[in-house]
Amino acid sequence: MDYSSESLQLHRLLKGKISIRNKMDVRTSEHLSLVYSPGVAAPCLEIAKDPEKVWEYTIKSNCVAIVSDGSAVLGLGNIGAAASIPVMEGKAMLFRQFGHINAFPICLDTQDTDEIVETIRRIAPVFGGVNLEDIAAPRSFEIEERLQDLGIPVFHDDQHGTAIVVLAALINAAKVLGKELSQLKVVINGAGAAGVAIARLLRCVDNEDNSTCVPVKEIILCDSKGILSSKRDDMNDSKIATLVYTNPNDISGTVYDALVGADVFIGVSVGEMMTAEHVRTMAKDPIIFACANPTPEIMPEEAYKGGAAIVGTGRSDLPNQVNNVLGFPGIFRGALDARAKRITPKMKLAAAYAIAECMPFPTRDMIIPPALNEMVAFKVAEAVRIAALAEKA
Amino acid sequence: MDYSSESLQLHRLLKGKISIRNKMDVRTSEHLSLVYSPGVAAPCLEIAKDPEKVWEYTIKSNCVAIVSDGSAVLGLGNIGAAASIPVMEGKAMLFRQFGHINAFPICLDTQDTDEIVETIRRIAPVFGGVNLEDIAAPRSFEIEERLQDLGIPVFHDDQHGTAIVVLAALINAAKVLGKELSQLKVVINGAGAAGVAIARLLRCVDNEDNSTCVPVKEIILCDSKGILSSKRDDMNDSKIATLVYTNPNDISGTVYDALVGADVFIGVSVGEMMTAEHVRTMAKDPIIFACANPTPEIMPEEAYKGGAAIVGTGRSDLPNQVNNVLGFPGIFRGALDARAKRITPKMKLAAAYAIAECMPFPTRDMIIPPALNEMVAFKVAEAVRIAALAEKA
Repeated sequence: MDYSSESLQLHRLLKGKISIRNKMDVRTSEHLSLVYSPGVAAPCLEIAKDPEKVWEYTIKSNCVAIVSDGSAVLGLGNIGAAASIPVMEGKAMLFRQFGHINAFPICLDTQDTDEIVETIRRIAPVFGGVNLEDIAAPRSFEIEERLQDLGIPVFHDDQHGTAIVVLAALINAAKVLGKELSQLKVVINGAGAAGVAIARLLRCVDNEDNSTCVPVKEIILCDSKGILSSKRDDMNDSKIATLVYTNPNDISGTVYDALVGADVFIGVSVGEMMTAEHVRTMAKDPIIFACANPTPEIMPEEAYKGGAAIVGTGRSDLPNQVNNVLGFPGIFRGALDARAKRITPKMKLAAAYAIAECMPFPTRDMIIPPALNEMVAFKVAEAVRIAALAEKA
Repeated sequence: MDYSSESLQLHRLLKGKISIRNKMDVRTSEHLSLVYSPGVAAPCLEIAKDPEKVWEYTIKSNCVAIVSDGSAVLGLGNIGAAASIPVMEGKAMLFRQFGHINAFPICLDTQDTDEIVETIRRIAPVFGGVNLEDIAAPRSFEIEERLQDLGIPVFHDDQHGTAIVVLAALINAAKVLGKELSQLKVVINGAGAAGVAIARLLRCVDNEDNSTCVPVKEIILCDSKGILSSKRDDMNDSKIATLVYTNPNDISGTVYDALVGADVFIGVSVGEMMTAEHVRTMAKDPIIFACANPTPEIMPEEAYKGGAAIVGTGRSDLPNQVNNVLGFPGIFRGALDARAKRITPKMKLAAAYAIAECMPFPTRDMIIPPALNEMVAFKVAEAVRIAALAEKA
């Protein structure tokens, strides 16, 4: 179904999908004296004396900035800050609906890394967390990294949110098929924000303590030019850095070369590129997550024709929807509840396992919970909160 | 009454006085497809094609940033960004309650003029207006001035909001007493943001077209060191600039010297400094607006003892409350409805007269409407909208 014209109508009707409301009415001069002058001076002075009190007396404890520069919006590319607002408002709705979080779109009229970093630092006081969204790689990597000292979680959902949900799906897919994560050979097509983050999470690159993280056996990361390898001379620094934990035999070739004998294909690229023929070259009972939106890298029917055992996509009208909404609302809810200063690798792992455990008896067509299951965020939040408190994140 | 402990309790209970809510639920995958991916691509692409469409499809058309650097918060001084949040949340509540506007607190972790200006420029895409709040003068003057080309109204409420409401009160006070605005000698105590803006508005400094603006006869502006005059050598540039339209005879002395023979005293300073004795030195039937908060420059009882004809204060427990909430919600409502690019002197005048006209039969104790009268904002909005459309502001 084409939602375009209906969506346009809805957006025109609503003129903004979110709204800022008062938690109490201001109808009497006593109300005014309590929520505004002169009574409001009291919480102000408390915070001035003890800055930690800002968590107690203001919206900060439950407020997230959704920050985008409009440089990589959905599959639409660099459409700019203003054109990204509808997406950020939609994201804010999901934060509210599933995470019970106040989220506000901050769409920046700059695409300069330094300017984005300093702007986020300046507007941080009112926020308890920052969700970076639809910012092009590798800029997004640097922005996220440079802001880890901000004192509130700064989380690029296109990277880690996607990686967490993919890992959750992979955990249960392996469980259904009786495969071990540690034995899986994985091909990832797409070496942008999502692809790199998936590779890092699946290889436990950021988890110093391997007792809690089981790395997959092997990952081959591919971009539009093929397999990332040391023989290429057209790769940026972030792609070069992946060679430490991907492509152990330093093979070269196309994504189709990579697929031969692979157990898992994860697509986070730009649409249809695979057929049943390609699936047939993979190992027995392969797992296919074709997450390109709106057109998957391969449609499930075609993948099954080629012998796929489990197929997931990004689409809500197909089984096994790999959707970030399973992750970020609960992840931020848990981080805010723990008043975490950052979202650590252990918190990410905890989130992935919590999502997977929402389906205690997964089946081929039900490896992860439906995107709109409201219980998932609660379970993710609890797992993330406990993980955060355990390591004083 | 001391509202401190009750206000603290309330703030602790609410943990944020405002909340970001969804205009519709996201419960089905069809909802998700309309408000988020894939349907949301449609409004994004429309805006990318025609940037003006951002007003049609997003929250921008009804969204205001309340920006503060925490440098001059209430009477508390420079308490910083985090400590200013409760005030900005309270302001957001008033925007919602009276202007039906989505207003969000942007509390900046910088007090550098250039940084504040550039940060506001960068975050502007999602906002239809900017309310500057509790930023110390003269920095606030420069910030406001430099942002007049932003394409959305940037309005320093501590200046113009206060000036507009004071003018409204003065219009009706003069009416009650049968005095002409053009004959009034006015003393303003306080030469910060509010004092200077009041002087400019009362002297029609920014209104090129005097047919719609009647300047008061004379203004003497005073700061903590006394009357601003050319003989002083301790005045900053913004104070020096006021000499063009104040103190025509270039007199020197204290605020008490200025009061002798004056028709109007307007206090926007730091509390009690006048007695009945001082009022007695003024012209017959003087008008006193003692707006210092929470302690007026002179209490009404004392002022009446000295012969005052009409007394207003900033307090909600006394008659004739001069309160900005009579202004800004309707001013922004009208500006947003007209999609004005700035708030012009004519729009400010229109707002002042609209507030005054809310009391068609003013009396000494009822020169302006009560602060919480919900009809005022509608009338102000309509007047401001018409003024904005008339001059294509």
